[in-house]
Amino acid sequence: MSFFEAHRALLDRAVAACRARTYWSAFPEAASGKIYGETAKADGEAAFKAMLGKPFELDQPNEKHAGKEVSPYGVALGITYPTASANTLIDASRKAGTAWAAASIEARVGVCLEIVQRINRQSFLMANAVMHTTGQAFMMAFQAGGPHAQDRALEAIAYAYDEMARVPATAEWTKPQGKGEPIVLDKVWRVIPRGVSLIIGCATFPTWNSYPALFASLATGNTVIVKPHPGAILPLAITLKIARDVLKEAGFDPNVVLLAADDAEAPSTKDFVTHPDVAMVDFTGGPAFGAWVREHAATDLVFTEEAGINPIVIDSTSDFRGMCGNIAFSLSLYSGQMCTAPQNIFVPAAGIESNDGHKSYDEVAAGIATAIDKLLGEPERAAGILGAVQNEATVARVAASRKLGRVVRDSIAVPVTGFDGARTASPLVLAVDAKDDSAWGEERFGPISFVVKTADTAESIARAAESTKRKGAITASLYSTDDKVIDQAADAFARSGVALSVNLTGGIYVNQSAAFSDYHVTGANPAGNACLTDAAFVANRFRIASFRRQRAA
Amino acid sequence: MSFFEAHRALLDRAVAACRARTYWSAFPEAASGKIYGETAKADGEAAFKAMLGKPFELDQPNEKHAGKEVSPYGVALGITYPTASANTLIDASRKAGTAWAAASIEARVGVCLEIVQRINRQSFLMANAVMHTTGQAFMMAFQAGGPHAQDRALEAIAYAYDEMARVPATAEWTKPQGKGEPIVLDKVWRVIPRGVSLIIGCATFPTWNSYPALFASLATGNTVIVKPHPGAILPLAITLKIARDVLKEAGFDPNVVLLAADDAEAPSTKDFVTHPDVAMVDFTGGPAFGAWVREHAATDLVFTEEAGINPIVIDSTSDFRGMCGNIAFSLSLYSGQMCTAPQNIFVPAAGIESNDGHKSYDEVAAGIATAIDKLLGEPERAAGILGAVQNEATVARVAASRKLGRVVRDSIAVPVTGFDGARTASPLVLAVDAKDDSAWGEERFGPISFVVKTADTAESIARAAESTKRKGAITASLYSTDDKVIDQAADAFARSGVALSVNLTGGIYVNQSAAFSDYHVTGANPAGNACLTDAAFVANRFRIASFRRQRAA
Repeated sequence: MSFFEAHRALLDRAVAACRARTYWSAFPEAASGKIYGETAKADGEAAFKAMLGKPFELDQPNEKHAGKEVSPYGVALGITYPTASANTLIDASRKAGTAWAAASIEARVGVCLEIVQRINRQSFLMANAVMHTTGQAFMMAFQAGGPHAQDRALEAIAYAYDEMARVPATAEWTKPQGKGEPIVLDKVWRVIPRGVSLIIGCATFPTWNSYPALFASLATGNTVIVKPHPGAILPLAITLKIARDVLKEAGFDPNVVLLAADDAEAPSTKDFVTHPDVAMVDFTGGPAFGAWVREHAATDLVFTEEAGINPIVIDSTSDFRGMCGNIAFSLSLYSGQMCTAPQNIFVPAAGIESNDGHKSYDEVAAGIATAIDKLLGEPERAAGILGAVQNEATVARVAASRKLGRVVRDSIAVPVTGFDGARTASPLVLAVDAKDDSAWGEERFGPISFVVKTADTAESIARAAESTKRKGAITASLYSTDDKVIDQAADAFARSGVALSVNLTGGIYVNQSAAFSDYHVTGANPAGNACLTDAAFVANRFRIASFRRQRAA
Repeated sequence: MSFFEAHRALLDRAVAACRARTYWSAFPEAASGKIYGETAKADGEAAFKAMLGKPFELDQPNEKHAGKEVSPYGVALGITYPTASANTLIDASRKAGTAWAAASIEARVGVCLEIVQRINRQSFLMANAVMHTTGQAFMMAFQAGGPHAQDRALEAIAYAYDEMARVPATAEWTKPQGKGEPIVLDKVWRVIPRGVSLIIGCATFPTWNSYPALFASLATGNTVIVKPHPGAILPLAITLKIARDVLKEAGFDPNVVLLAADDAEAPSTKDFVTHPDVAMVDFTGGPAFGAWVREHAATDLVFTEEAGINPIVIDSTSDFRGMCGNIAFSLSLYSGQMCTAPQNIFVPAAGIESNDGHKSYDEVAAGIATAIDKLLGEPERAAGILGAVQNEATVARVAASRKLGRVVRDSIAVPVTGFDGARTASPLVLAVDAKDDSAWGEERFGPISFVVKTADTAESIARAAESTKRKGAITASLYSTDDKVIDQAADAFARSGVALSVNLTGGIYVNQSAAFSDYHVTGANPAGNACLTDAAFVANRFRIASFRRQRAA
């Protein structure tokens, strides 16, 4: 049985899920021995530890070694990766591309599905790799780096397959000619790929943010070079090792996927971005380098997820405690390092109405601060939510941000059992006035948020929508008991191209974006020009070649 | 009954046709009184004549007038059009955009379908307008400027509708929580447009080449500014007048579509292309200005159809006469001014095998030349095939090209009954060697073709595929009785991103691209970066805004 046949039912289910967008998940998020095998957790940790302090085994073009990853939990990984110049890797990629491009849609999609299945079986290894590169706490590293990323991969494969399947393989075209014999043409169409696809990964979600592009490009016949962030190579190296194994088993040149590792001191990304043989670029990262990529890429086909400043608008609530707790979690989760984490919480100067009676602006701010303190009161639990801080610069940014407003809740380091060297920071919450937009109107990446005092909810919505158009936003959140306000906010945030969540108080957070249901990034504001995953994300990764032949009379 | 309901069956049929890609057409190509009304032809001509020598009635922002069209048949049209600065028109477009963006998908698609239906009823007026701007002969102006363009419009609407309809309006997302109550979110999605869509028309096919972008952008909620070529304004002015009428009837601001006419001496295109409020650009025209547009557009979202040098490879044939006649027609139709017309005919030095025995290279060249002479031997018929030459520069190019090779057949002017001032040129055919690629390796727009002598068919295919990759090509044609050669050519031309036609000998020509079946331009070589029409042509014209609300417990 081919890979495609083996996974056909899963693919069909995924295609249907993308259209229905009700809840569905292919890969269980529970880090449970019952699902993944009773020894899976220990095996994953052992496999991770066995990788430390030595060269990573990857049989690809090898001119030099790169790799200086240091765990945000304090330990240098000591892993090096084979790497090579842009010219060498792109040449190898192009060479591998001929047979891959000529393969059937089913052969390629089958390979992609098998790769994802095998990655799923390594979810505990991946959890360790993601944890010790991104700084995510173990459980989040397992879920977001593992099954959730795998769901996003499957979603991209489903979109790619669906889009390619819309092009018929053949047709008989018969044009009537009045009383004469009709003209008959036999037509054949084939999907032709773009060529070499470059994927630039980020340091915080190396798998979740790269998998959609990786699998969309692969399924549509392109070869892929993955340029990981120098701080988070391992999760993508493991991914590509698995992918290369599957490609080899299926009879393809494993260089269909290649790792382009580098170090922060000798960055290579620009060599790839500006290379004329790179046919498309997918970038996840900050807006400064994102703008450079968009401007300097040799190709016009560039997909980006950059960043933004995500707003929460508080108008009123029927569950004050639930609201504060929900916001506290959103601010704390992975120390505010999610691209979907809120930064600015807009609250009217006159306060809000709630089920607990009127709450002044200060009471709302205090309510959120108290909820954070409560959430993080127990050290083990705090470490499990906050994780560690990926980049030293983020800690410095937290320190420098204290002067931007009145400190409502201060950021502190939080000990992590077993990792004395962990770099941590709990949420800093500042009170500012709406007019202080030099404070809140810029992206302050990390556990930094502002309770922004506005004249009223109308100003809150206007400020939030305006900052979204100017600086980008991926998520927005609203609390209101008034359907009119909800409708106004829905219109305003739709126009500014941001996904709105309303009245989240339970175990679901604005930060979370579920595969097969939530579109991640609209592409309609500066937070990014592409969406994970819609038809536009896949449809331009391939082209259609036409063949028509006149039938002999 | 709404416009959408009125045209729903047509839309569904069109969506199905795009997927099946068998023969289908919505708008009859026969210029018949039985179909269009017994007085339609006379009415169309009268309506056209009534427009001459006066301002065109269009109630849009009007700061000045433009319009100096001269018919290639020799008469100045004397029509002026209201126009305004880029700032004024873009402001008006944005203002009109709010309500248009907020309209339902069905309302917008209904308006688009009604516009196309009404344009269809004006097909005879349009034929006159297209004839006397492009120089197409009347029958071609009727078909290509009328029903074929309308089919292309409907195809784009169908693609846009299908793509938008794939996004569900709502979903209930219920995530199980083990033994706890599930989390329930009510989700709503809406299509949000990009904004102002700029469409830059060409002088040869003002309707056929602009309609896909016009209707794809409109249907997906964008407002449209059409910047016609200064030599072919009238067909698009008529189109927009009809569109504005329908928009008004449906309760929308007619400035949802605007005409941006200009004159060659005071071109305005660059003002629009570089304006930051233009969200996307569709360009049809030459590669020099196309490259400028791609480089300087304020937006990254640019769709182009530029140009290329289309090859024919002759390997062998079972119908020598049919082949020569078919090629002769392709070279003659509209005097080689179609972007799909062949330029280079590759023939082995040793000649080819045919049903009439071996034919030397010279005999093949002579066979084509003779077929052209025969096709154009009768003046009335010749004028009906050749039409007139749109641009004086094309006539000069024909004259200058004679020195590029050995003249196999010379170009001459051909009289057109009733139009003494018609600018005409029959096909020039030159014999050159494959190594003379400074002659055949550049685009020579107009009735200029080369019979290129190669070592063998393998070289023919290689040269044709290489020139396609380097300079672009929209069509390729092959004559061969050998399935191996056909397979090789199919692979080579698919890789170079060009649509291949094989063994056309009857009443179907490589120049012809049928809506609902043939993809026009692949987007995979320099002839253009977009395809009319595939999913990628429409999917990125809109974005998706998400709304999710936690259901109260």
